[in-house]
Amino acid sequence: MTPAQAQLVEQIRGSFGPKTAVTDPEAIAPWLTDWRGRFHGSAPAMLAPATTAEVAAIVRLAGDAGVPLVPQGGNTSMVGGATPPADGSALLLTTRRMNRIRALSPESNLAVAEAGVILADLRAAAEREGRRFPLDLGARGSATIGGLVSTNAGGTQVLRFGTMRSLVAGVEAVLPDGSVHEGLAPLKKDNRGYDLNQLLIGAEGTLGIVTAATLRLVPGMVSRAVAWAGLESPARALALLRSIEARTDAVESFEIVPDATLALVLGHVPGLRAPLETRHPWHVLIEAVATDPGAEPPTALLERLLGTAIEEELAGDAVIAASEAQAESFWRIRHSISEAERAAGPALQHDISVPVDDMPRFMVEGGAAAEARFPGTHAVAYGHLGDGNVHFHVRAPAGADPARWYVEQGPAITRFVHDMVVAAGGSISAEHGIGQMKRAELERLGPVARLSALRAIKGALDPRGILNPGKLVALAPGGRTP
Amino acid sequence: MTPAQAQLVEQIRGSFGPKTAVTDPEAIAPWLTDWRGRFHGSAPAMLAPATTAEVAAIVRLAGDAGVPLVPQGGNTSMVGGATPPADGSALLLTTRRMNRIRALSPESNLAVAEAGVILADLRAAAEREGRRFPLDLGARGSATIGGLVSTNAGGTQVLRFGTMRSLVAGVEAVLPDGSVHEGLAPLKKDNRGYDLNQLLIGAEGTLGIVTAATLRLVPGMVSRAVAWAGLESPARALALLRSIEARTDAVESFEIVPDATLALVLGHVPGLRAPLETRHPWHVLIEAVATDPGAEPPTALLERLLGTAIEEELAGDAVIAASEAQAESFWRIRHSISEAERAAGPALQHDISVPVDDMPRFMVEGGAAAEARFPGTHAVAYGHLGDGNVHFHVRAPAGADPARWYVEQGPAITRFVHDMVVAAGGSISAEHGIGQMKRAELERLGPVARLSALRAIKGALDPRGILNPGKLVALAPGGRTP
Repeated sequence: MTPAQAQLVEQIRGSFGPKTAVTDPEAIAPWLTDWRGRFHGSAPAMLAPATTAEVAAIVRLAGDAGVPLVPQGGNTSMVGGATPPADGSALLLTTRRMNRIRALSPESNLAVAEAGVILADLRAAAEREGRRFPLDLGARGSATIGGLVSTNAGGTQVLRFGTMRSLVAGVEAVLPDGSVHEGLAPLKKDNRGYDLNQLLIGAEGTLGIVTAATLRLVPGMVSRAVAWAGLESPARALALLRSIEARTDAVESFEIVPDATLALVLGHVPGLRAPLETRHPWHVLIEAVATDPGAEPPTALLERLLGTAIEEELAGDAVIAASEAQAESFWRIRHSISEAERAAGPALQHDISVPVDDMPRFMVEGGAAAEARFPGTHAVAYGHLGDGNVHFHVRAPAGADPARWYVEQGPAITRFVHDMVVAAGGSISAEHGIGQMKRAELERLGPVARLSALRAIKGALDPRGILNPGKLVALAPGGRTP
Repeated sequence: MTPAQAQLVEQIRGSFGPKTAVTDPEAIAPWLTDWRGRFHGSAPAMLAPATTAEVAAIVRLAGDAGVPLVPQGGNTSMVGGATPPADGSALLLTTRRMNRIRALSPESNLAVAEAGVILADLRAAAEREGRRFPLDLGARGSATIGGLVSTNAGGTQVLRFGTMRSLVAGVEAVLPDGSVHEGLAPLKKDNRGYDLNQLLIGAEGTLGIVTAATLRLVPGMVSRAVAWAGLESPARALALLRSIEARTDAVESFEIVPDATLALVLGHVPGLRAPLETRHPWHVLIEAVATDPGAEPPTALLERLLGTAIEEELAGDAVIAASEAQAESFWRIRHSISEAERAAGPALQHDISVPVDDMPRFMVEGGAAAEARFPGTHAVAYGHLGDGNVHFHVRAPAGADPARWYVEQGPAITRFVHDMVVAAGGSISAEHGIGQMKRAELERLGPVARLSALRAIKGALDPRGILNPGKLVALAPGGRTP
């Protein structure tokens, strides 16, 4: 611990008590490595403020002392976004003691949750009031509201409800100078200049520490229907989605799965069966939800829409789950892909997006191009077709040594995939952010106008580089480059 | 014209032809005053680039020459946001030659429109393809896409579809250094750091000149139903809205009107009749829209929902327009309020918002407080209850001399209203922006953390103060203060 760090820890303990600064290395250790074990950092202390005022005081003191802070929620970043630098120059700041749901109103469909509230807890609290917080992802048991806001998280309900950005009605955050941005008021219309809430969403804690958010809730589910359809191509799948979207808002999920991936899952997970008896090159899983007891039941809705789709030859065949158990088994296929893919061999995964319209072409041509360029590899694309966001995996050639293949082939394959994404006007980070992992690729792929604006904003709001150093974007020359 | 301005005009004419720089004072004159005649500016030349590349070149040249530019679309700002400074130091830059709809796809529900495209033209183009661009406002025949993006415009369809921010899927803009931000790709998920599109929306041309936008379309209307309900109070009206929102997404408008205002309209506009035979202190106009021919018809939907509302005593009485003509007459009442109010005497109008939940209280208590503080005045609040945004008028005492009353009482009344808004956690600009008109009030009411962040961002991206000087926010001390 440097003298400046030691003094800072003393000040914080003196002001806010011993719980607010943890220095026991064993207590800190679990939070120095990301959950996938890919990034390792070091921090001589972990600060644990309990209130926004404490966060503000800590940021002010840290700024004066020149000690950077790394905010951390559930430590579920996919890109090393919450892992401190390896040199021990920064302190961790965990939000986990700020875990209060300050308000939850089913009347106004809003909740105010502190940064450390865990996603699953918020979802459960909303359900107890007959409402839903419509963002869901695998890390729901650990991921926190502060992290979800700071990474503009996506998940499986984006098709209807959008990413976190669409669900955030207000943000409270401590800015790098220690001032508090009080933006929690849920104003549907507010045109007082640059929208700081929007700027903080997805900023990965580099412009401010999100301490609380006002979040939109949606009506509770009255009933749902889950369908499985087999079809010819991603292009037909997209046409089917368009046809459905033109007729209803009730579809909340639309996931695409190639036939080979379905076969892989069925071979890997005992007890799962193919939903359709007919064979098809591609499959989609569709969920429709009713929130009004008086509205057309979702089963009738999907029967009607899929009937039309089969007549129009968008789909070859379709089945609607006859029971909740069957609906669950359809979803289990989807949720088992990641595990089945892992069992099939080492693969490089890419979290990428392109314009929705272009996704069918990208899935087919991009996959073929990757396989042609890296002989023996197998490209797999599946996921949120309607979000323009697929999981794009490139699996190692059979028999390849995983460790060696990752090191020798990984960077070239990833650059190849990212180049295709950029050529399609897409994003090298659809929902995971940049963090540490994608910083070099962001620097490489620009665009220059964008990078230069990002650096200017970082330099203007955090000239001393106090918040989350080494993530997302380096300060411009002249500012301190973490 | 200063030598620097003259040289700049020569350079631009030399590069892009005579049409690109107008110096005829008569041709410029109409664009130097805002449409309400409240702000008067001066500019020795009006630049009229035809392409994004021309805008970029002009901004670069202007930056080098130190000549500020004032971007202007349809000149329909309500806050003097597109009127140049009075000292002639800046040149106008009109986007009207950039009026191409570059693409419009009913399949993907997206349009790409250049900054100078007029709202009505975009709406008509979408309708020709069986789609809607769901933003509408009085200035639809003049307001341009660039201006609507730059002011995050609202209007009458915000309840269901949100403000411009919700409808913008991509932004192309020339930044103050002359670089082009190419953000048109409609990516539903893109987490590559700070969202520049979001930053440019509502920035009033002070951070970049929006040259084009990708815009979301929604399905065309199959049928609509328009209802009028009478009820006890704004609180009941909000409860009715909540009850409807919990059951359907089909309601696109929900406007509240006090009974005295209805009476005013009926007395002012010949041929209009009260929709209900019973008397009620408050009224709401509700429009529901179907986009799926197979879905429950909106008339049946509103009958069902309003039937429930009357049973639950949220509404006292309600009627659904029996014909399109009757539906139009209900809307005519709403659209005539502004005119009837004007005829009733001089009034100060405030474009304010508070959290939706608090709006019923604000309408009642805020109105009473203003009348008590300024004896003889009459406060009227009506409009977009569901957006937390009402038109809050304070009418002069009977017999007051308009000009004198505006000058002597206006500023104090407006400060009083704004203070109440701030106390309620609201915004002193719901949809019109800050421009020149509200800059002093924004400075007065802060909050400080927000203002200081706004200044830092402006200073970082436009350190020379080239874009739209004198609007929204002054540069921080050290930067040039326009």
